[in-house]
Amino acid sequence: MTGAEIHAAQAAGALTWLHEAAAARAKAGLSRTLTPRAPRSTVLDLASNDYLGLSADPRVLAAAVAAVREWGAGATGSRLVTGTTELHAELETALADLVGVPSALVFSSGFMANLAAVAALGGPDCLVVSDAGNHASLVDGCRLSRSPVAVTPHGDLAAADRALGGRVVPRALVVIDAIGSADGMLLPLAAWHALARRHGALLVVDDAHGLGVRGNGAGSVAEAGLAGEDDVVLTLTLSKALGSQGGAVLGAPAVIRHLVETARSFIFDTGLNPAAAGAALAAVRILAADMAAPAGSGLADSVLARAADLAAAAGVPATDSAVVPVLIGAAAQAHALSVALLERGFRVGCFRPPSVPVGTARLRLTARSTLTAADLERFRTALASTRAVAVGGSAPEEGQRA
Amino acid sequence: MTGAEIHAAQAAGALTWLHEAAAARAKAGLSRTLTPRAPRSTVLDLASNDYLGLSADPRVLAAAVAAVREWGAGATGSRLVTGTTELHAELETALADLVGVPSALVFSSGFMANLAAVAALGGPDCLVVSDAGNHASLVDGCRLSRSPVAVTPHGDLAAADRALGGRVVPRALVVIDAIGSADGMLLPLAAWHALARRHGALLVVDDAHGLGVRGNGAGSVAEAGLAGEDDVVLTLTLSKALGSQGGAVLGAPAVIRHLVETARSFIFDTGLNPAAAGAALAAVRILAADMAAPAGSGLADSVLARAADLAAAAGVPATDSAVVPVLIGAAAQAHALSVALLERGFRVGCFRPPSVPVGTARLRLTARSTLTAADLERFRTALASTRAVAVGGSAPEEGQRA
Repeated sequence: MTGAEIHAAQAAGALTWLHEAAAARAKAGLSRTLTPRAPRSTVLDLASNDYLGLSADPRVLAAAVAAVREWGAGATGSRLVTGTTELHAELETALADLVGVPSALVFSSGFMANLAAVAALGGPDCLVVSDAGNHASLVDGCRLSRSPVAVTPHGDLAAADRALGGRVVPRALVVIDAIGSADGMLLPLAAWHALARRHGALLVVDDAHGLGVRGNGAGSVAEAGLAGEDDVVLTLTLSKALGSQGGAVLGAPAVIRHLVETARSFIFDTGLNPAAAGAALAAVRILAADMAAPAGSGLADSVLARAADLAAAAGVPATDSAVVPVLIGAAAQAHALSVALLERGFRVGCFRPPSVPVGTARLRLTARSTLTAADLERFRTALASTRAVAVGGSAPEEGQRA
Repeated sequence: MTGAEIHAAQAAGALTWLHEAAAARAKAGLSRTLTPRAPRSTVLDLASNDYLGLSADPRVLAAAVAAVREWGAGATGSRLVTGTTELHAELETALADLVGVPSALVFSSGFMANLAAVAALGGPDCLVVSDAGNHASLVDGCRLSRSPVAVTPHGDLAAADRALGGRVVPRALVVIDAIGSADGMLLPLAAWHALARRHGALLVVDDAHGLGVRGNGAGSVAEAGLAGEDDVVLTLTLSKALGSQGGAVLGAPAVIRHLVETARSFIFDTGLNPAAAGAALAAVRILAADMAAPAGSGLADSVLARAADLAAAAGVPATDSAVVPVLIGAAAQAHALSVALLERGFRVGCFRPPSVPVGTARLRLTARSTLTAADLERFRTALASTRAVAVGGSAPEEGQRA
């Protein structure tokens, strides 16, 4: 071999394990590929988290454009250096007001907001009780917190109670998703809050799928009457019902101050770009104005009604949110079904391990307030005929063969 | 006490530790507050990471606006569901071409890109050798990787060699920042690559401060002749020289595929918003076109020349980048100096612990290609007179009193 050939062989050797891991995923039906969307596609979107259609709302787009012109394309630095504009401050006030919480802090994503809330409020002296259904960003927050962590079965208040009761460290944090990203169901937040308070713990609630959908738009925490409680820390995303990008933590001023001064995913990250901040602010104002709409006619009521229609069209029970799962089981089969639906003009989500437990792969449908009865009828027909064909070729379940 | 009073007291109790921690930080001179910027401020920016002024470039702004109109305010979902548009794919190709690497993957921030690269490429069977000067996002990537981690003194090749030689797990990853965010100095990348290759390790290089600045704009890795090496994984940010928001990992197709299929900070995050993707793409195209400029006249050459002028104005040695630190020592003193400079119309960064080691608090100046000789002369005068006044009131050093 020449020197160049030896070098190439050495470099390739460092990648051998990657090829082996990829082959193993392919064998288990867990390959994933990115399929870029075209603009103005005629495919019906039943997969996005744009629950209120605000990512394409002319008022939101105009605000994004105005923010670019006023503030530039980027925030230019971290929030503590040059990355906080008056627009960021205005967005934080508007978010806090919408939900009814004293203060808010905006992050570049909901993922980063969750890392901050859990990692900065946890610590070696703090037990974190984390629900088994929690989003990956909350789980990663637990890992970064250096806390002792007790993972309790999804929704199991008694297990969380036992974990809190047995703690040997002075502080505790209870961490939950208000609405499961994969099942669309709402946890009984008042009971979780009572539990946390009984044990002197802080309750961290991620309401990613509740904002704009529950509580007349103010979200699950406001609906449960917990907004403004000092021992509740709320995390939100600006990228779902608000149609933009970014995340936020809302809570008592002491909590927000603690995050500003200590949270690594806040201090060491560039501020949210102005277009996203401006778009999110416009969306918050639309939601705030919408709260004055007559009962049943607001955006939040409308997306819940469409979600119930969507569940009926898919022949599954309605959920507490815009997320409507259709359980399939095997990963390869769920994937095949989603591809077949895309070919027929319907984009649906397909959640496979590790996003959901092995053996529970599913289509994840999402409703949007702008869906029409005709959309849903077309989908009902397409799903029924696609399932009739696709179910024939049943693939082995990756978990069972492992 | 009434029931309501008891409740309030219980909630407040869960926050007691936060107040105590805040008081301790205040006593150590480590309080931090957000100071929102006004639009069209007359303050001279010597603190942002907008090294080439592209965050305000009319071509970049126009691209951000066009992207909002074409694609909407948000990506509407995670990259594997609805969050990949043709714009994201185009940006990934342009980034890979600019640097001369086969493939690229865009994230919502450089922080998330770093979490992905280190956490998904590490693992319990992989030793991570992490330079002590690494950015917080690389450190958090180490923590999330579940790898055995050896932290070696900043820039110490021999220590990294020893750590790699003593490893008992089959794989290894060497993780460095090409240019230190706090010291502005470039590591000898060819030597680091030779070290990694000798040990069959992958080299992860974060070039956040090199892109657009070193290598005629293509960055430190291209300058060192390492672009396209299979065993080099490059991470970038879109929020510094590119003036936008977001991050990217560049490398061999097998590396990118691995991240798409396994990296939690990729799979479980909403895609980058279209405005930021469009702005970054325009900035990449400006850099690519700029490479054809006569030697010494391009944007990258110009920012390095301005950085040398800025260092001279501050009376400190030039660095390898646009980052020019002015070491002060005590956190409270560095902070007081930055506030005094702001009052005189100059915004400078102030890095205090935990951003830098205790006792090394500093002003962190950054150069921009658009700085004028008059700007720098004004700053020279202001810094000299401010230091003469501020140095008088020396505060105790937080590390020494702890």
